[in-house]
Amino acid sequence: MELELKTAKEISETSKKYNLHSWSVQGDLNPKVMSKAEGIYFWDGEGKRYYDMSSQLVNLNIGYGNQKVIKAIQDQAEKLAFASPGYAIDVRSQLAKRVVELAPDNMGKVFFTLGGADANENAIKIAKMMTGRQKIFSRYRSYHGATYGAANLTGEPRRYTCEPGIPGFIKFFDPYVYRAPIDFEREEDATKYYLDQLREQIIYEGRESVAAIVLETITGSNGIIIPPKGYLQGVREICDAFGILMVCDEVMTGWGRTGEWFGINHYNVKPDIITFAKGVSCGYAPIGGVLVSKDIAKHFDDHFLSCGLTYSAHPLGCAAGIATIEYYKEENLLEQSKEKGKLLGEILENLKSEHPCVGDVRYIGLFSAIELVKDKTTKEPLVEYGKDPEKVMKKILGMLVERGFTTYTHENVIIVAPPLIITEEELKEAMTIMDDVLFEVDKMIGATVGQMIG
Amino acid sequence: MELELKTAKEISETSKKYNLHSWSVQGDLNPKVMSKAEGIYFWDGEGKRYYDMSSQLVNLNIGYGNQKVIKAIQDQAEKLAFASPGYAIDVRSQLAKRVVELAPDNMGKVFFTLGGADANENAIKIAKMMTGRQKIFSRYRSYHGATYGAANLTGEPRRYTCEPGIPGFIKFFDPYVYRAPIDFEREEDATKYYLDQLREQIIYEGRESVAAIVLETITGSNGIIIPPKGYLQGVREICDAFGILMVCDEVMTGWGRTGEWFGINHYNVKPDIITFAKGVSCGYAPIGGVLVSKDIAKHFDDHFLSCGLTYSAHPLGCAAGIATIEYYKEENLLEQSKEKGKLLGEILENLKSEHPCVGDVRYIGLFSAIELVKDKTTKEPLVEYGKDPEKVMKKILGMLVERGFTTYTHENVIIVAPPLIITEEELKEAMTIMDDVLFEVDKMIGATVGQMIG
Ligand SMILES: Cc1ncc(COP(=O)(O)O)c(C=O)c1O
Ligand SMILES: Cc1ncc(COP(=O)(O)O)c(C=O)c1O
Repeated sequence: MELELKTAKEISETSKKYNLHSWSVQGDLNPKVMSKAEGIYFWDGEGKRYYDMSSQLVNLNIGYGNQKVIKAIQDQAEKLAFASPGYAIDVRSQLAKRVVELAPDNMGKVFFTLGGADANENAIKIAKMMTGRQKIFSRYRSYHGATYGAANLTGEPRRYTCEPGIPGFIKFFDPYVYRAPIDFEREEDATKYYLDQLREQIIYEGRESVAAIVLETITGSNGIIIPPKGYLQGVREICDAFGILMVCDEVMTGWGRTGEWFGINHYNVKPDIITFAKGVSCGYAPIGGVLVSKDIAKHFDDHFLSCGLTYSAHPLGCAAGIATIEYYKEENLLEQSKEKGKLLGEILENLKSEHPCVGDVRYIGLFSAIELVKDKTTKEPLVEYGKDPEKVMKKILGMLVERGFTTYTHENVIIVAPPLIITEEELKEAMTIMDDVLFEVDKMIGATVGQMIG
Repeated sequence: MELELKTAKEISETSKKYNLHSWSVQGDLNPKVMSKAEGIYFWDGEGKRYYDMSSQLVNLNIGYGNQKVIKAIQDQAEKLAFASPGYAIDVRSQLAKRVVELAPDNMGKVFFTLGGADANENAIKIAKMMTGRQKIFSRYRSYHGATYGAANLTGEPRRYTCEPGIPGFIKFFDPYVYRAPIDFEREEDATKYYLDQLREQIIYEGRESVAAIVLETITGSNGIIIPPKGYLQGVREICDAFGILMVCDEVMTGWGRTGEWFGINHYNVKPDIITFAKGVSCGYAPIGGVLVSKDIAKHFDDHFLSCGLTYSAHPLGCAAGIATIEYYKEENLLEQSKEKGKLLGEILENLKSEHPCVGDVRYIGLFSAIELVKDKTTKEPLVEYGKDPEKVMKKILGMLVERGFTTYTHENVIIVAPPLIITEEELKEAMTIMDDVLFEVDKMIGATVGQMIG
């Protein structure tokens, strides 16, 4: 296959001319070319190397160029590139078995999708079919995808284009303790406060009309918000009390990212439904899915499952998933994630104590965030929620990228979530760049609100 | 990579145990194993061969085992299996250029998705952003996908689990002339009737609140409903009169299926948005997309495009798409589709005149349907809409499959849409099986309504 585009310039210009790019004003773009990639690094069109410190969109847990997964895709393409979802094929059955075996032991079956949004779409549909109820609870500081159903689950501004909203989609507050309205003495007090609020809201909405509570086990893009002690157990209890299904979105938190197969494993809680994507194949070939409990699986033995998509359980995705899971095991990547995560935590705590602009750092495994403020005491965010007219965060990201550190930001937060294969040296080197840039941010807030900095 | 599942029995049983299967009562299933496939054929776990007369889900236009597309996927997997949508990469730019070049000449850019549902989801969002309006018109006899937005576009029962519906999604009637409430003398009268109805409905809903009219250029799963002369031109005129965007869903009708690159090419009409998936890569690797006009593309030069998904414009899908398009050209598959379609049309007309159970046949290129009735004169459908308690259609499908002819049925319709690479001999052979089975159906209706058969 011969491509007519040869140079980086041609590739970038053609992209600007013909591709619509996600989440942007197209006129502002100068699409960066990715010309090659290996391990935790990629290179742009000019041959400059970058640390990929967000694993692309927190999906490339095994890094780039993994030969085992590449080989699995190549073999499957040759053997059978496509079979519609109704057929049983070896890799499709095998991946389902693997995924169920690695999930909490109440899980029974899996419905495979292509990515995270459609996993959440199908989770909502399944919850509604299972319970016969219509309302769905989810949280404000959340992202669940950009198709209508997933966007209506989403609490942050990326849902607005999918409004007017779907009737019955209700939002509640996340246990975002750093910005709670009350200064809790103990973590447990925060937990109690947020759970009481949730319970009250469910009662107002009608206990028996709520099908599911959908939540990111640990909130990802919206700031790595780690649930306070007892919170997820409490949500489970509320669900049990009212006959509501607990749906954990593990699209980001699954597959070793937090040091466990699923984020929920940290909390000794068993959801009724788990959605996943990203890390299961690391995006080498698209696949996602909805894990359902044995109870739910049994329900559909004699009820019609009204779900489907042409590329559900795509053979290439299944083959990639099996190989990726094998690789996680062979290389002990869950252990790696925990260990490197400890080092990352130490580095982040140092940055926090060192930099006036760092209000909070949050981390679990290799899943972490740096929250920027104008003032540590008042906690005033560096940019207002949903509003950054001077593109401050874009400038900060630009400084990181210029120094060879790529990641993404969200509101006043910088995500740090490198591939799980990163070495200690690489992690330290990359975070030195972050340190440098945070000094610049310190200057930025010093310049505007200098007197507030202690 | 070593799989533990070896025999067809293990693969099928594991699938039944761990996979949730689309659109079914799971307990009824005995998942058929697909063990190998080549050209227009696949083989089950017992080594039995089948004609794939629906190209799986009307996506496998080039058939199975195409070495050119397989090689493109293998090479891309090795070179760069993943880059997030923000980056420009050679195949991503190249496929965008190819697709825009093959589309009607008013098209400007493309937003790539993974499949058909998410293409339609993004089309709706784009139409709303572009127009600032909220209502979306689509038709009852339609299928646009199973995620919330796409399901709310969908008119047939597969939308019901995504209700209560999204505010502002309005349904109108298709120009289903065979079952029109009036016996039109001329095709043009039907066209006028349906267009007048549509115009009136738009006026009642509020001319200035309608963002888009979304329609399958030629209705697919819901019965290959071919628009009467002048209908699509008329829809275009209505859209122009009221500032509404015309969105053609070409997920099935695109990429040679009807003998043209896009179904709309038969009608000399230029939509504002075209969605596609399936045939662009034939599902060898998942990719779909939204083509937007130059006007729309320009709008987003200085407006934020609030669309995105992690696996948008996936590198493997892009590589597969480029190779697939090259293959269509090299093998002249559009011409093939037209030629073989002529033969298919003749065969179908024969079946219609021969069999009392065949009420209507509709065909264009290799896209066709056989509509079954209890009585040719009253046109009473073989099964009631949305209701087939005795599983009559399932039995008919079973007879076809048993004789080595796979396809799918929808309501009282059998779809016939083989790969475009089918030879005349193969087409004739396969349709002999259909002929045999239709004799059985004749007997079925003879047994219940024997006196009505003329
Ligand atoms: C928690 C979570 N859920 C769902 C999604 C949506 O996944 P996708 O982009 O594959 O549709 C994302 C994507 O970032 C996510 O982070
Ligand atoms: C016309 C049409 N639109 C959209 C879709 C949905 O595509 P997908 O199954 O890839 O989501 C289909 C699927 O059959 C279709 O036929």
